[in-house]
Amino acid sequence: MIKINLFCVGSIKEKFVKEEISEYLKRLSKYAEVNIIETKEVPIQSKQIDAVLDEEGENVLKRIKENEVLLLADLHGKEYTSEEFANIIKVLIDQGKSPLNFAIGGTMGVSKKLRERSNYKLCLSKLTFTHQMTRVILLEQIYRAFKIINNENYHH
Amino acid sequence: MIKINLFCVGSIKEKFVKEEISEYLKRLSKYAEVNIIETKEVPIQSKQIDAVLDEEGENVLKRIKENEVLLLADLHGKEYTSEEFANIIKVLIDQGKSPLNFAIGGTMGVSKKLRERSNYKLCLSKLTFTHQMTRVILLEQIYRAFKIINNENYHH
Repeated sequence: MIKINLFCVGSIKEKFVKEEISEYLKRLSKYAEVNIIETKEVPIQSKQIDAVLDEEGENVLKRIKENEVLLLADLHGKEYTSEEFANIIKVLIDQGKSPLNFAIGGTMGVSKKLRERSNYKLCLSKLTFTHQMTRVILLEQIYRAFKIINNENYHH
Repeated sequence: MIKINLFCVGSIKEKFVKEEISEYLKRLSKYAEVNIIETKEVPIQSKQIDAVLDEEGENVLKRIKENEVLLLADLHGKEYTSEEFANIIKVLIDQGKSPLNFAIGGTMGVSKKLRERSNYKLCLSKLTFTHQMTRVILLEQIYRAFKIINNENYHH
């Protein structure tokens, strides 16, 4: 079974968001083994933003092997339709890529290094979303991708 | 206080989504009186899609006065950043428009008439979202818009 890692900075506090995420993980378990890996949110305080981003990025990068694929949620990335996104996933699976690593940056964004390392930069919307919403949206799109790949009905 | 109507086809079944919506309504109550108006989801069965869309659209149109503004969530609309969206809201408020009517179509989309009547067609993303997610995203963006308009910090 295909493995998916979803790297996120920090944890989700609100109970209803946790439940929503659990629901998508349950639905996704039919298609993939999805692990959410919450990395440390680096406090800003006296640090420069770049230093914070670098440290947060490093926490993701050190967990990804050189030959693995990384898909980064990035406001400055490219926008895809759900069908195009599903096709990216399909091609990667067909190429035997596993795990598929997805990453969502922290409050301040993503580091240059993380952006450069990523194989796909996905802009989910021109709108700015909260972290928690980004996590839910990405999980739902991954689920939707599997429904599309498998030609299954998805009543949305 | 500014009045906002959010017309949605059908109701939300999942408890955690209901809670998420309640949370945003609570937060928004500081800035606006927001009413969610759930219109009837027309069953498709023997009907043509266009007939379903027309009926669902009519349920919104009959509740909106001629001089009122309508902002429609529409996949075929224009994409705005959160700042641009906030500016639209600000301009409408400055023009004394109230209520601001927002509408989200049903599973099948929106009718031609509803699209033609709308003053703004907002595409939230190239991605396809579920209905419930669209409702949450739109509420969050309206909330975000008020934070932007009022120059308030919003830790996202």
